[in-house]
Amino acid sequence: MKIVVAKTAGFCFGVKRAVNIAFEVARKKHKGVYTLGPIIHNPQVVERLRQRGIVPIEDIKEKGDIEALIIRTHGIPYSILGKISSMGYEIIDATCPFVKKAQYYAKLLSEEGYQVLILGERKHPEVRGLMSYVSGKVLIINEKYPYPKLKGRVGIVVQTTQPIESLKRFLSYAIEHAKEVKVYNTICNSTALRLKETEEMAKNVDVMVVVGGKNSANTTQLATLCRSLSVSTYHIETSSEIKDKWFKGAKTVGITAGASTPEWIIKDVKERIKDIGG
Amino acid sequence: MKIVVAKTAGFCFGVKRAVNIAFEVARKKHKGVYTLGPIIHNPQVVERLRQRGIVPIEDIKEKGDIEALIIRTHGIPYSILGKISSMGYEIIDATCPFVKKAQYYAKLLSEEGYQVLILGERKHPEVRGLMSYVSGKVLIINEKYPYPKLKGRVGIVVQTTQPIESLKRFLSYAIEHAKEVKVYNTICNSTALRLKETEEMAKNVDVMVVVGGKNSANTTQLATLCRSLSVSTYHIETSSEIKDKWFKGAKTVGITAGASTPEWIIKDVKERIKDIGG
Repeated sequence: MKIVVAKTAGFCFGVKRAVNIAFEVARKKHKGVYTLGPIIHNPQVVERLRQRGIVPIEDIKEKGDIEALIIRTHGIPYSILGKISSMGYEIIDATCPFVKKAQYYAKLLSEEGYQVLILGERKHPEVRGLMSYVSGKVLIINEKYPYPKLKGRVGIVVQTTQPIESLKRFLSYAIEHAKEVKVYNTICNSTALRLKETEEMAKNVDVMVVVGGKNSANTTQLATLCRSLSVSTYHIETSSEIKDKWFKGAKTVGITAGASTPEWIIKDVKERIKDIGG
Repeated sequence: MKIVVAKTAGFCFGVKRAVNIAFEVARKKHKGVYTLGPIIHNPQVVERLRQRGIVPIEDIKEKGDIEALIIRTHGIPYSILGKISSMGYEIIDATCPFVKKAQYYAKLLSEEGYQVLILGERKHPEVRGLMSYVSGKVLIINEKYPYPKLKGRVGIVVQTTQPIESLKRFLSYAIEHAKEVKVYNTICNSTALRLKETEEMAKNVDVMVVVGGKNSANTTQLATLCRSLSVSTYHIETSSEIKDKWFKGAKTVGITAGASTPEWIIKDVKERIKDIGG
C-alpha cells in the first residue's frame, strides 16, 4: 500500500507562531497563565500545553489568579480585548497576523461607510472577532444559507480559512446586486494551497485520511472537499481512531491535515497506516 | 409565421436623451452645429440629423465655422473636452449620464491609487473616454485576449454595455490574484435587461433578427449571444437587407434591437417580415 502525505499538511505560519509563543511562555512562567479559548483548534496540542501549566478558559471570571493571558490564533472580540487590557494582566497576543489584517480591513470598511459582509462561519471565533471590528450592522455570508439582499456599497472580508471558490461564487452574486463592491481577499495563502494539494491528492488515491481537530474549520473543509470528490474519506484527530477495515483493497492512501495539526500526530497516523499495510 | 418583438428593443434612456437634445438643437440653430463623432452608433439616425444640419466630424480641425458642438452619448476623452472648452464654442453635452458616472468612478479609483482596469472594448469611444480619466497606466480587460497579471490593489469600472457574465468571470480571476479589488458595476441596467430578454427569446424562436448599427457594440453583442445559442441569427441595420429565404420553414421569428436603434426602423423590419410570412 502506497502512503502519500501532503506537503502542505499541518501547522501554518500563524499556528506555528502561536504554539511557539505559548511554549516559550510555559518555559518562563509556571502559574496563572491562561489562554482565552483554546489557543488553536487542536485538542492534543491544547492538552500538551495544559500539562505545562497553560490552561484554556472561556471567561476571565473563571479564574482569580490570572497573571498572563494569551490571545488565541483566531483573535478575540474588540470589546473583550479592551476589557482585559484594563485589568492589569500581561497580555500576550498570539493572534495570527493574517487574522489581524482581516480585522483591520473589517474596521476600515466599516469606517468608510460600507455595508460590511463577512464570508465565513457565524459561530467561528475568528468570525466573531471580525464582526466586533464593525460598527453598525454586519452580515455573515455562508453558502449553507440563502444570500442576503444587497444594494448600494458593500465591503467584504473573508474568514482566512474559507475556500476561494466560495468567495468567487459570492462575488458573482454581489456584483449583480450591489452597485459598488470592495473586497479584501483575506483568505490566507496556505489555506488555498492546502485545499489545492488535497484536491489533487484525493483524485489519485483510494482512501483519504484527514487529520485534525473536529472543531477545526479548515480541517473539516478538507474532509468535505474530499467527500465531494467521492473518495473514501476519514476525518480523525489521532491514530487511535484508525480502523484496519478502512484500507481493505486500497492501493494508495493519501494523508492531509489541517493548519492546527502538529507534525507528531501526522507522523503517528502515517506509521499506524503503514503497519496495517504490512 | 409568428413575429415577436422584444419589449427592451431599441432606444435606451441615454440614447433617447441624446437624440432629443440633438433634434432640439436642430430646431433652434441651422448652421455650424456639429457632433464630435457620430452622436449614437446608428447610421440612419445620424443621417436624419445630418439632413437637419447636424453634422458629425471626427476632429474640430475639419471645420472652420463651428458654433456649437454636441458631445456624443459615449463621451469624449477628458483632454479633448478641456481643449474644446477653451475655444469659445457652445458645448452641448449629450454624454449618457451612466457613462458620466463610469468616468467619475474611473477618476476616483485613479485618485485613490488603484491600478485601474476597464472591462470593455479597447477601441470603443466610451472606453477611450473612460481611459482618459485615469492618470497613470490603465489596463483594458477583454475576454478576447488573455487577462493581464494582477497584484496589489485593483479598481474596476465597466463599459456600460458589457454583459454581466464577462464581469463575473473577470472578478473570479481578479480576486484570486489581487489582494484588494474595488469594483463599480457600471453596466447599465437596460443593457442587462435587453441581453436577458434576448436570451429567453432566442431559445424559443426559429429565427432571430437583430436590428442595429454594425458599429454598435451592444447590438453586435446581442447577435453574438443569439449565435451562441445556435439559433439562425441575422444582424441588419435596415429592412432593405432582409432576404426571404431566411424565413423558409420558420414558425416563429424574434426581433430585438440595440440601444441605438430607433423605433421606426424596428417597425419597418417587423412589417417587412410580416409581408414575407404572408
